[in-house]
Order: sequence, then C-alpha cells, then structure tokens
Amino acid sequence: MANKIKVVLVGGSGYAGFEVVRWLLRHPFAELVGIYGPAKELGPMDQFYPLLSKQVRLSQELFDPQAIAASGAELAMLCVPHKVAMSYVPALRKLGLRVIDWSADYRLHDRDVYQEWYCPHEDAEGLAEAVYGLPEFFAERIRTAGLVANPGCYPTCSVLPLAPILQAGLIASEGIIVNAVSGVSGAGRTPSLKFHFPERNENFEPYGVGKHRHMPEIEQTLGDIVGHGVQVLFQPHLCPMDRGMLCSIYARPKGDVTAEQLVEVLQAAYADKPFVRVRSDVLPATKYTTYTNFCDVWATVAKGQVILFGALDNLIKGASGQAIQNMNLMFGFEETAGLY
Amino acid sequence: MANKIKVVLVGGSGYAGFEVVRWLLRHPFAELVGIYGPAKELGPMDQFYPLLSKQVRLSQELFDPQAIAASGAELAMLCVPHKVAMSYVPALRKLGLRVIDWSADYRLHDRDVYQEWYCPHEDAEGLAEAVYGLPEFFAERIRTAGLVANPGCYPTCSVLPLAPILQAGLIASEGIIVNAVSGVSGAGRTPSLKFHFPERNENFEPYGVGKHRHMPEIEQTLGDIVGHGVQVLFQPHLCPMDRGMLCSIYARPKGDVTAEQLVEVLQAAYADKPFVRVRSDVLPATKYTTYTNFCDVWATVAKGQVILFGALDNLIKGASGQAIQNMNLMFGFEETAGLY
Amino acid sequence: MANKIKVVLVGGSGYAGFEVVRWLLRHPFAELVGIYGPAKELGPMDQFYPLLSKQVRLSQELFDPQAIAASGAELAMLCVPHKVAMSYVPALRKLGLRVIDWSADYRLHDRDVYQEWYCPHEDAEGLAEAVYGLPEFFAERIRTAGLVANPGCYPTCSVLPLAPILQAGLIASEGIIVNAVSGVSGAGRTPSLKFHFPERNENFEPYGVGKHRHMPEIEQTLGDIVGHGVQVLFQPHLCPMDRGMLCSIYARPKGDVTAEQLVEVLQAAYADKPFVRVRSDVLPATKYTTYTNFCDVWATVAKGQVILFGALDNLIKGASGQAIQNMNLMFGFEETAGLY
Amino acid sequence: MANKIKVVLVGGSGYAGFEVVRWLLRHPFAELVGIYGPAKELGPMDQFYPLLSKQVRLSQELFDPQAIAASGAELAMLCVPHKVAMSYVPALRKLGLRVIDWSADYRLHDRDVYQEWYCPHEDAEGLAEAVYGLPEFFAERIRTAGLVANPGCYPTCSVLPLAPILQAGLIASEGIIVNAVSGVSGAGRTPSLKFHFPERNENFEPYGVGKHRHMPEIEQTLGDIVGHGVQVLFQPHLCPMDRGMLCSIYARPKGDVTAEQLVEVLQAAYADKPFVRVRSDVLPATKYTTYTNFCDVWATVAKGQVILFGALDNLIKGASGQAIQNMNLMFGFEETAGLY
Repeated sequence: MANKIKVVLVGGSGYAGFEVVRWLLRHPFAELVGIYGPAKELGPMDQFYPLLSKQVRLSQELFDPQAIAASGAELAMLCVPHKVAMSYVPALRKLGLRVIDWSADYRLHDRDVYQEWYCPHEDAEGLAEAVYGLPEFFAERIRTAGLVANPGCYPTCSVLPLAPILQAGLIASEGIIVNAVSGVSGAGRTPSLKFHFPERNENFEPYGVGKHRHMPEIEQTLGDIVGHGVQVLFQPHLCPMDRGMLCSIYARPKGDVTAEQLVEVLQAAYADKPFVRVRSDVLPATKYTTYTNFCDVWATVAKGQVILFGALDNLIKGASGQAIQNMNLMFGFEETAGLY
Repeated sequence: MANKIKVVLVGGSGYAGFEVVRWLLRHPFAELVGIYGPAKELGPMDQFYPLLSKQVRLSQELFDPQAIAASGAELAMLCVPHKVAMSYVPALRKLGLRVIDWSADYRLHDRDVYQEWYCPHEDAEGLAEAVYGLPEFFAERIRTAGLVANPGCYPTCSVLPLAPILQAGLIASEGIIVNAVSGVSGAGRTPSLKFHFPERNENFEPYGVGKHRHMPEIEQTLGDIVGHGVQVLFQPHLCPMDRGMLCSIYARPKGDVTAEQLVEVLQAAYADKPFVRVRSDVLPATKYTTYTNFCDVWATVAKGQVILFGALDNLIKGASGQAIQNMNLMFGFEETAGLY
Repeated sequence: MANKIKVVLVGGSGYAGFEVVRWLLRHPFAELVGIYGPAKELGPMDQFYPLLSKQVRLSQELFDPQAIAASGAELAMLCVPHKVAMSYVPALRKLGLRVIDWSADYRLHDRDVYQEWYCPHEDAEGLAEAVYGLPEFFAERIRTAGLVANPGCYPTCSVLPLAPILQAGLIASEGIIVNAVSGVSGAGRTPSLKFHFPERNENFEPYGVGKHRHMPEIEQTLGDIVGHGVQVLFQPHLCPMDRGMLCSIYARPKGDVTAEQLVEVLQAAYADKPFVRVRSDVLPATKYTTYTNFCDVWATVAKGQVILFGALDNLIKGASGQAIQNMNLMFGFEETAGLY
Repeated sequence: MANKIKVVLVGGSGYAGFEVVRWLLRHPFAELVGIYGPAKELGPMDQFYPLLSKQVRLSQELFDPQAIAASGAELAMLCVPHKVAMSYVPALRKLGLRVIDWSADYRLHDRDVYQEWYCPHEDAEGLAEAVYGLPEFFAERIRTAGLVANPGCYPTCSVLPLAPILQAGLIASEGIIVNAVSGVSGAGRTPSLKFHFPERNENFEPYGVGKHRHMPEIEQTLGDIVGHGVQVLFQPHLCPMDRGMLCSIYARPKGDVTAEQLVEVLQAAYADKPFVRVRSDVLPATKYTTYTNFCDVWATVAKGQVILFGALDNLIKGASGQAIQNMNLMFGFEETAGLY
C-alpha cells in the first residue's frame, strides 16, 4: 500500500527485534524499511534468524541516524540494551523521528532512581520528554508523544491487574507482593550455563531476590496511576518454557472486600480496552495469551487476602505487541491494527 | 541379604507406587515381596510401567490382607487414593502390619477438618493412632508408630522452611503466603484435557485458588510444631515439567529481623538433619533436588517482608523418598539408608 | 473491507480449527462468518479455546448446510475427522460452496486404497472431483477446484524434498525411507495416557510401524508427480514439543550424484515458490519454520546415500497455512496473502 | 563396608562425571575417594553441581597421578575430553591403576582411523592394550582389562540392536541406515547459542551430516563382532529433552526374513544379558529407559526393509551406567551391582 508509514528497527539481533519484524510483516499500515545495529552485529537478518529467510531481505546495517532519516522513516523501534538506547535516541529525535524505545532508559522518570538501579543517565532531555507506553492508562499522551518508553514485561503484567484495584481503594498501598514467573526468552539471547538447555529444562527457580530492576518501575507506574506512593515486593522466577508470564499478586484488602467487587472494578476499567481480558470463565494461564497481545487478569478474595493474577506473552504484550499498539496510537491507526 | 525386612506395596499403578518400587529395588535392608491393588488394576507391574521390565517380576494382585500377612511382610506401603486408604488400613493393622499411608486419610488429626475438606471419615481408631510422617520434626514418634501418615508434597515443602522461623518467633503467625509451584506428576496419572501434552506444555497456570486440600494440612502441621495457630494462604501453580516443586513464601517479620538471623535459625534447626539443606551458595532450584530426597531451604528479608524458599522433588522428598525415610526410622535403619 | 470473501469453518474444536480461525482473523481478503460442528460440541469458540476470547465472538453451531449457504459463504473449511467429512461434503457442494477438506477422505484417488487404509468410501462423486491441495505441484488445478483435499502434514513434509529429486531421476524409486518426527499436536486433542504430560514429556518414541495412513498418501502423491510408481517406507516418531515436523529421508542415488546436483534441482524447482526454502546456510530445524507457512528442504550425499531433510510446522504448512494458501489460489488472491 | 574398592574420578565438571558420582554413592562394593581435574576447574564438587551438596564432600583437586596412587585407588574413571585422556592414561597405568576411559581416545583400534576423525594419537601402548567396553559382547576381555574404553552412547544404542541380526546373516552388511536421536545432555555442558534454552526448546534438528565421529566407531564395533566389514550411514538429531536416545535402524533383509526370526535372534542373544531387553510388549521409548542402565531393542520387517529400534539413557547405558557395569566385570562384582 502506498500510504504505509515507514519504520526502522534499531537492534535486530535479539528476541525483541525478531518479534517486531514479524509483526511489521503483517501490519496493514506500516512497513519495515531498514534495520540498524552496532558494528559487531551486521549482516542479513536471516543470518541472525534463519526463520526469516525468504521473508525479510533486509540486512542489519551500521547505526546511522542520517541514513535512517534519509530513508523516509517516521518511526524508529529501538531494541537495544539500556545505556546504548540513550546514546542513540537524541540523534534520532533531533532528526525528527519519533521513537519507541524498548530499553529501560526512559521508563523511570526520576533520574536518581534510574541511576540507583542502572547507570548514569546522559539524556535529561529525552527523560523529560518520554511518555510511558502503557496504552491502557496513558493513551492520550502516547498519541502525541515523540518518545515512548515501551514498558517492561513484568511491569505490564503486574500493573494491569493491580492498578484499577488500587485506584478503587480496595487494597492497601503497601505490603503488596508480586510473585512473578517468566518464560526463558525474557532473559535474552546470550548463552550462559544458567540458560543452557539441560540446566534450564525441567527446572523452576527464583532469581533477583529483592533487587530486580522492574521493581521500581512497577512502583512508579502504580504511583503515577493512583496518585500516591505504592510499595511492592517483586519476586521473579524462571519457568522452563519459551515464552509466557504469570504474576500472582497478593494484597491486603481495605475493609470488607468481595470477589464480586474486585471483578466489577476490573471489568469497568477494561471494558473498552481491546487487549485486557477480565477472565471469569477460566483462571489465567500463560498459554491462553501466547502469541497474542492480550493480558488476562483475574481477582478474588481468599483467607483474608486479595489475590490477583495477570498473564501475558512476555515477548508480545510484554514487548513487541505493546510497541505496535503504541505505534498504532501514535500514528492514528486503529489500536488493534495488525495485532491479531 | 537374609535379614531384609519384607515390604508390600498396595497400589502400584500410580506415579507414587512406581517410585517406591524403584527405591525398594535399591534398598540394602528392605525387599519388596508383593504388590496389591483393586480389582480393576491387576497384572504384571511392567505392564503398568514398561520401564520396570526385567527388573521387577511382581504382578499387582487383588488386595487381600490375609495374603499380605501370610507373605511375612512387616510393612505395607499404601499408595491408594484417600477414602480407599481408610478402607484398607484397619485390616492391615489388625493383622499386625505396620503401615505407611500415602493418602490424606490419616494426615489431619481433626476428623471434622478432614470431613470438611475430603469426605466422611470411617476409621477413628486409625486417626487416633496415626503419626504424621515428617521425620525432621516427628522422628521420635515415627520410630515406634504402627501407622504413619506420609505427608503431602506441598506441606513438606512449605513446612520445612517455615517451621523453624515460626518457632523462633521471627514472623507473624497470620498472613503467611505460600506461592507454590509443582511439576505435573503431582497431578497424578489420569489423562484429561488439562494434562494433555499440547495444553500443558509451554504453559504455566494457577489452580485451586483458596481451596487446595493441602492448606489445612500445612496449617495443622505448623500449628503442631509451634504450639499455636498459624494462618496460611496457600496458592498452587502448575509448571510444565515432570517433577519438582518450589514454594516461595512471604511473611511479615516480627520486629527487626535480618537475613543472617533467619539463616542461623534454619542452620541450627537442620544441622543434623540429613535431608534438609540450608543453601547459602545458590538460590534453591527444583533441579538441584530432582531425583533426590533433599529439601533445600533459603531465607532473607527484602522490602519489609521475610522471603523463604523451599524446593524438593515432589515424587521423592514429597512422597516416595520421605516414605522410605519413615521406613528407615520405623525399622531402626540409618535414616539415609538406600536414599542416595 | 467490503469485498472480503465469506468463509465458514466446519469443526472448530480441534487444533486445526483453532489455527484456521487465527489465520482468518488476519487475512486481508477473507472473513470468518460462521463456525459449525456436531451436536456434541456446540458453544462459544472461546469456551473451546480461551485464547480466542475477546477476539472471536462466534459460537460453534449445529452443522446445517442450508444455514451455511444462507450466510453468503463461498468457502467451507472442513476440519472434521475422516468419515464425517464425506458425510458433510456432498450437501455443501450441492449448495454451491467450494470446500477445502482437511480430512483424509478426498486425498486418495483410488477408492480401493482408501478403503484398505480407512473405511468404506461413500462419496464417489466427491472423490472424482477432488484436487489434491499441494500448491507447489497442483496450483493450476487448485485455482478452479470446487473441492480441495488439504494434504496431510507428513506427506507435505516428505513430498516437497523428494519430488524434484525423483523427477530429475537422481534417486531410485523404491527403497526410499522417510524417518519422520512430529510434535505432539499432530496427534490431536483427545486426552489419553500416551499424551498425558508426564508420559509424553522428556520422551521420544516411534509409532505406527509399517502401517501409518500417510504412507499410501505419500506414495500416491509422488507417483502423480513423477508419473510412475514410487515405494516409500514411512516411519513416524513422536517428539516432546507442541509443534514442528522434520523428515529425514534416505534414498539410493542413481549413478554418480553430487550434493551440488541435488541442491540445484531443488533450487530450480522452488525458485518461484514462496513457501519452500532450499536451505544452504543452515540445516533445517523445526524451529526455523514454527508459526510460519514455510517448508525448508535440504539435500546432500553421504556414504553412498542421498540424504534429504524437510521441515515445517505441522499445524501450518502441514495444515492451516496450506489451507489458506489453497484458498488464496482458489479465489485469485496473492498466494502469500495473510500468511506472514 | 571395609572391603569396598577405592575409585577416583578424573574430570568431575561435566555431566558424565556428575552421573558417575551419583552411581558410586549407591554402589555396595565401590567407594569414591577422590576427584581430580585440570587446573582451571578445581573446587568443591557441589560448586559444580549444587545437587551434590551435603552428599559429596570431595573437592576436585589438580590431577596428580602420584596422589591418586597414594590414595589407594584401584580404578580411575576418566571423564575428560579426548586428547586430554591420552595425556593422563599412561601415568595412571604405569602406577598400576586400572582405568575406564570415557573419551574416544581408546575406542578406535586403528590409529589411522582415529587420526582421520580426531587428532594425532600419542599413546600407542594404551591403544594396543585397550578393550572396548561393551559388556554384552566383550565381557571376557573386560574382566581382566587394565584399560577399558567406555563406548560412545550412539554406538551402544546402534550396535546392540544390529549386532545379533548381522551375526545371524539376516541383513546386508552395507547400506545400513542409523537414524539417531539424542537428548541435549549428549552435547555436553558448554553453553552456546545452539543449546541456549529458547533456541533448543521446542526444536528438533539434524546435525553432523555424514561426519559424526561415532560413525567409524559403530562400523568398527559391528565389524569386530561379525568378523567382516559393515557399512553404516549414521545420522544424528537433537531432541528437546534432557536425556534419552533412540536409534531407528533400516537395513535390507537377505532373502525372506520375518519379524519372528528377528525377534528370536535378539532374544537368544540377550536372554542372559541383564541390561538388554527385547521388547515385544511395547515399542521402545526413551522414557522406558531413562534413569536406568537398560537398552531396549525391537525388530520387525515392513515394506521390504528390516526395521530395528534401540533406546537407552545416553548418560547411563550410554555412559555412566555402562562404566559401572564395566567396573563390576573388572572387579568380579555381580554385573548388576549398584545399577538399579
């Protein structure tokens, strides 16, 4: 189609880049016109991903903002690690491209918090401009944003079940526990003993106790939505499967809260959101969401605790699908365009 | 060896029966002399488990207490479902056999609690006599017991990390959350859509919200150990792997509690217990315990919560290995005999 | 879009039906307008497949050819078991619908062969009319067909690597061995002990020795393409994964055949076929084709044997994607429409 | 027990070393007294394998033949890579230790063949002395051997079904095809992209086409057993599971051969071999052999071809269990001692 927007991908060698390529191949209103990356990872895309052979003829070329601008691209999908992202963004923005950044570099508004959890932050301007790309809560700002920080997978999966319940004042804002489980693709594509098949297969384990970098992102996002501080203990685990994420969330009810109340609050919040499903038919399961952009949520009360579940595909609603959803909003397409 | 004790297995068609056969094949002081079951499941054991061919020549014969007694057996391993178990136990006890029952029928002391969660209880005498077979806490009573109730896998995996911490008064007795994850063998051997490979594989999901039968067993056992009521929310999940179990436990500290204190308490509690390992080198992972009788435990404090992990093989420390450990205690063998 | 063709699905409860729904959701020129099935399997599609919730609002209704015709549908995708298919097809054809049948009922031209491997055949007219839907070889006939027999997954994966090599006369027509491996979804959605997760997981095994029903289909299709009889020993195996298929094929070279010759023949055969890839960069692997409509093929000579590999996604190029590809041909759409 | 033989392990960091440790923990007549390795891999065994914590207190110490001899060890299990093995063996043999070498260094009798497939061979004396450790065929020589070459997993799984059939003259000696499938542990413990969980999981693929080093080992061993040359095309594949191996073997019958004949030949060959099972009840499946030392074999005729299957656990009958079986023979223990 003549009037597709032109999109470039920056950082095509990881799982996130691969996923966005596949979504763009299907998109009715957007077209992937170039792929760029660091000097050590150049070459045809089907060399990184033999699956893409005969489907994608683009090569990953050296990152070059001028060339990107010259390509007529209106949007850059930035799938590079944190720190690299903030070294690429300013040039792209200066040249007029809108950017969806998948790294953590523009997710935390507070530079000090960022620096405590990551590294020195070098793009204060970008940080000020960036909009947190969770469409269910920030769609208005996303539509006009120049720079969207695509959320982390765990924050998406935690915030969607929690936020409406917190907004409704049905649970306490502190002492919230998010027990999260992720498929292994969430850990990226760099081999190590921990992810060596015979070590990882048939194995379930916790990691990052008390120090996972998604914890401050969850707290910030919930705080932004509800307007006051929220304290969350986030505990991730690795599950022997390629993809999928499930958060089991425990919180203390404020007064007498019923399961029905919780479900009504969620239903009201997400009635017109195309990619959040308030389940009442079945409990959320990762497989009901894999290869989709849906996040399934669920709520009840038991033994004096509010229990919430959130489930999604960490590579889709937790990354690539959410980025496409953000792109749809930014360019005025239907929110679901190309996302089935 | 001439002086091995004779053991019979009642109920050889499920995963638990299969596992105990394998342990008995290796045991230096015990010998499997017969396998018995219900009328609809008779036949050579290697018909149920082709893996056992050329190793086990026994057939599952119709359950017959007289024949069992005549075989010279001193111990019956009872691997039948709840309700069936209590219909078999009285006859075996009357004939002088000691019994390790793997069902839930003799785990809950309080008949009313049992009846609330299971079905009418028909063996009050057995219930009065039964000893809960968690060797780390009830070894003395197990040694002389006629009837041992082999604990559930989830209770074993929850109680071992929690009990010493509760005993030491370091956490509150209410509001404890046990987020548990199990391999699929824990659900038994009966096919259904839920456990059909393409539905279960690459899938992680919660089940039994607020109503899993191991919840009262956990509360009772903790209460027995610490001497007062304990309130636990137990939430199980299914993980796409054959075996392995991990409990992530969250509790509120009483006052200022440090990670060091928690670890010390666990180390003191399990210093002389051969099958509990207080990890400090690595976080517990199910794979570090699969095909072993170990339960790994771990403790820390983060974000104002005490976090504990327990990991074990649901079919071994959560079932067959624990039964052998109980047998070793009952018959005066070394606690670790035949369990490596 | 106003001018999408209307499609109905008959048989939505199995994996094949589910897959075709997902492809139709994405198709630019076709729209799913109804789902029909047998009396015992009626109800909302998201009851069969919770993944489809909020995406597909159709219910599976009782199969009714008149209602289907009244819906304005031009095409029926028939995803019902063999024998059921031939009881549905005549009415649909009579009412003017074109049909893509996914069962075996119209794949074997010779009624006697069909009856030897399956059951009595009751639709001689359909059998005479049906076109075997392997687009790479029968595209011309498919374009105008009223009834297309969508090929089996194993035949597709075997024939695509073999046919050009046989056509070129580079291997003997007898003594060909197809050692095939399939993911578990190929066995359907009916639970049984064989497919119970803890039995199937971590397990690889052969089945159907010398008697798999895809054997005559492979032989017939190769014979149709090359114009003379071809004799194949087909041996399938089950692999513990959801989807994916790989055929390792061994054949005796006719005279001095080199790997280069074999590759050239394959490249010439598939240069303009969008969904067959002659790999030279990497060996075929099922994962390079999963969730795509590609079949990857590969050839060499070693130890005096010609070795060929074919790999595809059994649920896509082996079923749903191939059906969409056939639909595209039948209705004059681009062959790749909606298939990325 | 006072009179256990003392065994040392050389090379404890890989999967093979780990497995032999577990078998020795259980063995009634042998005791592991030391673990040695190269300078870059020293330290407590439970650092390499957290599973061994509280069970094995040995550390891997620097390889030192004098220290090994001083420890009173009678046997060294050598689990180091090829080339390293032949640099360690001469010193151990000179000091009087018997050696079971798990590498390929002493498997191929013909130095030229070894050098063609591996690297220069530097221990002609060892090569001359070494006995190929396949107990089912070479038990007599193994009993008195000073140096046993523990067979490869694929050769064990291929030779056991093939050898008796070839000996009986029922199949041609050339044109034999071994289509082999292995779990991922067979590829060792070194991480790489190929074995990174999200690449390997849900993936089945061939490798080493026409050039796997087990091919000459299979041909040599079959040749040794039947007394004339045998030509085999060996094609391995990787299956997404931890362990298990299945060989599907195709051969041309010599004259009219029936399935019954084949089965009788296998049964006669293995009637008194404790670890080979000629299945007639079920087709071989890897899961019927995992965590056992059994090799299951099976034979039939179909479509003019003889079809054989062999299945075993690549880490047990294909490595560690076979080594223990060899040790049992070498030291006069019952062949099955410690192997259930």
